[in-house]
Amino acid sequence: MQKPFFFEIIYQSKKSRARVGRIHTPHGIIETPNFVPVGTNATAKALDSVLMDQLDVQLMFCNTYHLMLHPGSQLIKDAGGLHTFMNRKKPIITDSGGFQVFSLMHGSVHNELKSKGKKSDSNAILKINEDGVLFRSYRDGSQLLLTPETSVQAQKDLGADIIIPFDELLAFHTDPQKLKNSFDRTHRWEERSLNEHLKNPNGQAMYSVIHGGIDDALRQKSCEILRNLPFDGHAIGGSLGKNQEQMLTLLKNMMPHLPIDKPNHLLGIGDLPSIQPCIELGIDTMDSSHPTKCARHGMLFTSEGIIKILNSRFKNDFTPLDPACSCYTCKNYTRAYLQHLFKAHELTAYSLTSLHNIHYMMQLMKSYRQAILDDKI
Amino acid sequence: MQKPFFFEIIYQSKKSRARVGRIHTPHGIIETPNFVPVGTNATAKALDSVLMDQLDVQLMFCNTYHLMLHPGSQLIKDAGGLHTFMNRKKPIITDSGGFQVFSLMHGSVHNELKSKGKKSDSNAILKINEDGVLFRSYRDGSQLLLTPETSVQAQKDLGADIIIPFDELLAFHTDPQKLKNSFDRTHRWEERSLNEHLKNPNGQAMYSVIHGGIDDALRQKSCEILRNLPFDGHAIGGSLGKNQEQMLTLLKNMMPHLPIDKPNHLLGIGDLPSIQPCIELGIDTMDSSHPTKCARHGMLFTSEGIIKILNSRFKNDFTPLDPACSCYTCKNYTRAYLQHLFKAHELTAYSLTSLHNIHYMMQLMKSYRQAILDDKI
Repeated sequence: MQKPFFFEIIYQSKKSRARVGRIHTPHGIIETPNFVPVGTNATAKALDSVLMDQLDVQLMFCNTYHLMLHPGSQLIKDAGGLHTFMNRKKPIITDSGGFQVFSLMHGSVHNELKSKGKKSDSNAILKINEDGVLFRSYRDGSQLLLTPETSVQAQKDLGADIIIPFDELLAFHTDPQKLKNSFDRTHRWEERSLNEHLKNPNGQAMYSVIHGGIDDALRQKSCEILRNLPFDGHAIGGSLGKNQEQMLTLLKNMMPHLPIDKPNHLLGIGDLPSIQPCIELGIDTMDSSHPTKCARHGMLFTSEGIIKILNSRFKNDFTPLDPACSCYTCKNYTRAYLQHLFKAHELTAYSLTSLHNIHYMMQLMKSYRQAILDDKI
Repeated sequence: MQKPFFFEIIYQSKKSRARVGRIHTPHGIIETPNFVPVGTNATAKALDSVLMDQLDVQLMFCNTYHLMLHPGSQLIKDAGGLHTFMNRKKPIITDSGGFQVFSLMHGSVHNELKSKGKKSDSNAILKINEDGVLFRSYRDGSQLLLTPETSVQAQKDLGADIIIPFDELLAFHTDPQKLKNSFDRTHRWEERSLNEHLKNPNGQAMYSVIHGGIDDALRQKSCEILRNLPFDGHAIGGSLGKNQEQMLTLLKNMMPHLPIDKPNHLLGIGDLPSIQPCIELGIDTMDSSHPTKCARHGMLFTSEGIIKILNSRFKNDFTPLDPACSCYTCKNYTRAYLQHLFKAHELTAYSLTSLHNIHYMMQLMKSYRQAILDDKI
């Protein structure tokens, strides 16, 4: 008998919508607010699952799309599920593959914003209709059909603690009629996903994905539709605007329309300046590849701010990366040594710094939880 | 007061020249015979120093040439020496940079053998004369002079437990007169290196480098010259022939000319089939980047032989990489998962498999030491 999924609020801040909570899952508790590192291919880049457990990463985000293409969701099912396959003991969340439909069509979020919507659809997408999306695998050119039902089935094979309904993520630059059509369809897809999931919940929880782009009225409507369906929590997806200010305004207007007794998750956001304002607006968890990507580019998070380890002032700096940090890297290696490893293109550089940035994020979130309990946020 | 360098023979096999010994150094004991992993840039590739200590790597090989070019031997001296810079607690051996003179002129040993000596000298070498070698840095084009004295000074800055005199490594395809001239010069360079070292030994030991290519008489002469100088041990360098058979014949004829009461080291050899025959001929230590290079190419050492992890038969193999192995990788991850990480080009693959191959080598050498004690080798 698997432990049931439930959410408890430990403390509601008196100063903001921030709250401290606990999400109970079959693989343990996620203390909130928390940061969710990304392990696209069933590993955090340059780190391994046992180490992620040791770093107290309480929830990890894996990408269904990538895992469907390789090694395949059936193989992972045969291995005993994603936890067994990658040897992770703690909770996992998977997405639906919907985000990748967007990526295939428009390139990255950043590139799409820059292109002002002029970039044409990629020929990787063969067909989108009410049923779902037919596209070509970037790996071997084979055709793959993603529908609400196939996405949920793949996520059943993977067996993550939290799964996501199949949705369509439109670009920031989309005309209003197209947005409206997509909006309606994506909500039908989410309901189909939920129905497919509820045939065999198997201990998994499903979060909805709130859509509506940067239109407050559509966001509100999305909240109304989705909170009335038996989702276990709500993720916030779709375009969140072109800058932090727009995102925070959007969240400020939207968050009161989400039920307070269910956990929420902000998809794809995790840059350092965004975290505290999002927590203050009531965000429980958020995922991003930002800390590990930064690490691999020598952008290291410290108690004194982000440092660029390749900066010449660290050449002869024989002090730890962050004197205030207790991680393996800071206990054992210096700034000068890390700079040397980067300059020598040693893989060791990426492991040591990714470990540090993830450790930093876990400690940061712990300090935010304490700050809420202390009524400082 | 630094602990003195000395070598003790624990057991001499009754069946062969193989022996079990202990090399005492300022940073601890090296049990012999032993394998010496290479950490060219002050790290084993995809692993870190603390982990190498934990894997019981008792001697590590770092390259003076690379470290002189980056980050520079003065910077490492300022850090407190190579041990402090890279945070290694156990013994280190550095080479002289002589091997790289060869590499700059001829490309890799393998390529030189294939070219049959037709490949022209690279323009990286600006001048070779009695004094030493003037060459261009591959990093920034600056001119660098390597002489016996500058090489030893650089190795004093690095502060390894065992250092190597500056020598010239000729190609396999060299005409006899050129070989003779080089032979004489390299022995003069070694004596100059030793004299420079003895001005300030500072707890370091210096091994000679036996030369003479594949000429038994020259090898014997080299042994005679160098064993009469106060070196602490003897490394075997120069061309060792074009295949394993030629190398073993060469070693068989040469080893009786080395003093039995001093440790010896075979430079740049460490492929699995060569290890036992070399041990039987009396080799104490040998270094190679082979195990880590193999790991990064998915060639993994197991109790059942070398396996190619990308082989399709491992796709659904949910057993450990080597069921007989107790390393971190084998305890935590399966063959199917490792294959997936390789196919997804995840850096994690290289760390986990490098760790395994190094662990395998350490266990293998331990088993050889026991086999000698048991008179099985």
